[in-house]
Amino acid sequence: MNIPKTSFPRVVIIGGGFAGVALAKKLAKQEAQVVLLDKHNYHTFQPLLYQVSTGGLEPDSIAYPIRKVLQNFPNFYFRLANVEEIDTENERVITNIGDLDFDYLVVASGSVTNYFGNTEIEKNSMAMKTIPQSLNLRSLILENFEDALLTSDLNERNALMNFVIVGGGPTGVELAGALAEIKKGILPKDYPDLDTRMAQIHIIQSGDRILKGMSEIASQKAEDFLEKLGVNIWKNVRVTNYDGETVTTNGELLLNAKTVVWAAGVKGETIKGLNSEDFITRGNRMVVNEFNQVKGFDNIFAVGDIACMKTEDFPHGLPMMAQPAIQQGEQLGDNLIKLVENKPMKPFEYTDKGAMATIGRNKAVVDLKKFKFQGVFAWFVWMFVHLFFLIGFRNRMVVFVNWVYNYVRFDREARLIIRPFKNRNIE
Amino acid sequence: MNIPKTSFPRVVIIGGGFAGVALAKKLAKQEAQVVLLDKHNYHTFQPLLYQVSTGGLEPDSIAYPIRKVLQNFPNFYFRLANVEEIDTENERVITNIGDLDFDYLVVASGSVTNYFGNTEIEKNSMAMKTIPQSLNLRSLILENFEDALLTSDLNERNALMNFVIVGGGPTGVELAGALAEIKKGILPKDYPDLDTRMAQIHIIQSGDRILKGMSEIASQKAEDFLEKLGVNIWKNVRVTNYDGETVTTNGELLLNAKTVVWAAGVKGETIKGLNSEDFITRGNRMVVNEFNQVKGFDNIFAVGDIACMKTEDFPHGLPMMAQPAIQQGEQLGDNLIKLVENKPMKPFEYTDKGAMATIGRNKAVVDLKKFKFQGVFAWFVWMFVHLFFLIGFRNRMVVFVNWVYNYVRFDREARLIIRPFKNRNIE
Repeated sequence: MNIPKTSFPRVVIIGGGFAGVALAKKLAKQEAQVVLLDKHNYHTFQPLLYQVSTGGLEPDSIAYPIRKVLQNFPNFYFRLANVEEIDTENERVITNIGDLDFDYLVVASGSVTNYFGNTEIEKNSMAMKTIPQSLNLRSLILENFEDALLTSDLNERNALMNFVIVGGGPTGVELAGALAEIKKGILPKDYPDLDTRMAQIHIIQSGDRILKGMSEIASQKAEDFLEKLGVNIWKNVRVTNYDGETVTTNGELLLNAKTVVWAAGVKGETIKGLNSEDFITRGNRMVVNEFNQVKGFDNIFAVGDIACMKTEDFPHGLPMMAQPAIQQGEQLGDNLIKLVENKPMKPFEYTDKGAMATIGRNKAVVDLKKFKFQGVFAWFVWMFVHLFFLIGFRNRMVVFVNWVYNYVRFDREARLIIRPFKNRNIE
Repeated sequence: MNIPKTSFPRVVIIGGGFAGVALAKKLAKQEAQVVLLDKHNYHTFQPLLYQVSTGGLEPDSIAYPIRKVLQNFPNFYFRLANVEEIDTENERVITNIGDLDFDYLVVASGSVTNYFGNTEIEKNSMAMKTIPQSLNLRSLILENFEDALLTSDLNERNALMNFVIVGGGPTGVELAGALAEIKKGILPKDYPDLDTRMAQIHIIQSGDRILKGMSEIASQKAEDFLEKLGVNIWKNVRVTNYDGETVTTNGELLLNAKTVVWAAGVKGETIKGLNSEDFITRGNRMVVNEFNQVKGFDNIFAVGDIACMKTEDFPHGLPMMAQPAIQQGEQLGDNLIKLVENKPMKPFEYTDKGAMATIGRNKAVVDLKKFKFQGVFAWFVWMFVHLFFLIGFRNRMVVFVNWVYNYVRFDREARLIIRPFKNRNIE
């Protein structure tokens, strides 16, 4: 990989998501050589992917070149690579562009969509975890409306205008809300020759409330908001299959839909050589201790979604969200320096900053530790926080311009089929 | 296609580029049913594609949904379709989504890259006529730098950092200038472990000056600007082949390069059924009279790049640029209404508004009828004109934000490999 050996210890980080970037930024200032590997050359701000899918934002404004984030750190190296295997014995990472020895290894590879083994759902439904996937979904939605114009078969037309979202977490809720806004504000203007009132949006949730990671009041309010927007919420229903035409469930519910978004779960991706049953747990996450060390190793760590750190409040591991990832990444940066200097590491303590979700125009729910609020103010808080956490001044500006425009004009102009759906399986 | 027959005459327009959109906007206000067919659901502002390729702009900000342009016209219909054949006898357009009768047909299908029959160049070089193509080029440039880091073979590394642009028209010149700015401002920061001074940018021009459609002073100044930026200009050299490794020419010049951009010519694409030798001329353009009527037809027209309208000043046909396309589109809108009302049509007269090209930061050349100027002021004029002609307030704002940012920060943040090059042949 053409990376020089220096007197600094080499820390190899797999993944440039929230955790990997936070860690690299901390570490690259210190006396350590940092090598970050990612299969994309950019960091993705995943919480806004649903806006790319619904034409509200351009993909480039929620992505940021990883090289740019760490441009001024001379000890930082980025390589565009797929990690294929970890040779733990020889402390070496094996990738498609060559091998690399490490002194410390940090797995920050995030998560992928979890279909719980159902290959038919995997084949026929859409995921929304990456920018290419979000663009695919955007294209499919728009192409389906174009197709709906062409058919005279009422059932087919309805299926083309039906959207089924499986999973009532933040992703599912935010996507459903955005689709409902599109149905109300854009479709009637764009498709005057189509009865877009027939378009339906469904959320199917296996549990008894949506946003189950948030407070009950947030769930309740989110449901109210969604119902006001005309979204159908099916609770205590589990999707059993989707063959590309019909969604079948464990109950009597059957839905014909050409667009099914699977937002019902995520899981880690195990890496060959680092997949022992000793530490791989539910959802392919890697059990780590309070220093993010992977069980059985001193110099191999995991942070973010892929790490399963069990705490009193979270006996099944911290939630797979941006905040734990960022906090773990930052702290591991400090701890690695302590480790090199033979000082004791500081155990990780999760600071729960709360959670939020936006449902639509002027509609959001926010849970802070002390306050829980919903509605217009929550919506402004949501926007402010998301703008703040975006990386890069340009991205913030462009997103801000888009949001102001979309708000004032009740519009979303990025409804472009730039990536036809037929290529959806190509990254 | 589910388009109702009304008492208005039906005008079918093939292509939503500058000409097609200008025509549709004129016509849709009148007593005519307008059906626009395009294989994309968006209009592309082609003059700024090179900025997408070089990470300066996001693709979505130079594209605009065609439905949105014509949202408020009840007699307007858009269909996402590939036109396969014209049945002139029965006055019918045959497409992949069905057939459509027309009363009037307007071909506004634009142009594609012309490889002059060299399939090896076509296979190995990059074009930059569409948004997907521009994203492919962006990815290839970035991927090549990532690869350059990995090799220890000096020749290979240089080939990965060499950029050969064939064609010294506005596209080639603007792309070369942008690449030179990237080489200067971004590469040394992004790739500190690579000697990016070795990166080379070449323009190969078959004629004896670049920008040969502009004045001699513009050509001369553009050459000066480019040379100051370190671009190598090869004049009176014709590229004979490119096998993916080496560019061969009719002279002694040989260049090893992994990136070759073919900007040496465009041509029309003939449509089956409307490809008689009676009116297809050089570069597959369709000879039209001063009313944009295709030779031999009363109700079939061609506008924009595909139309070859010969005038005194332009004996080989008007230039294949935005201005003639827009003007022809607008005037044909008026003329078609006259034709329906049995009034005499007005012959088209081209108003040459001049030409311009930007070379880099503070560097542009502008030819107006009365004034020709170059440098900083020209550069501001270039920016203003391009912002003005972009469709949509949001696009203008986003492009403006990007330009201000890029100017102030000497940066281009959209350097994202969103569409890996290996998929370059997929739209």
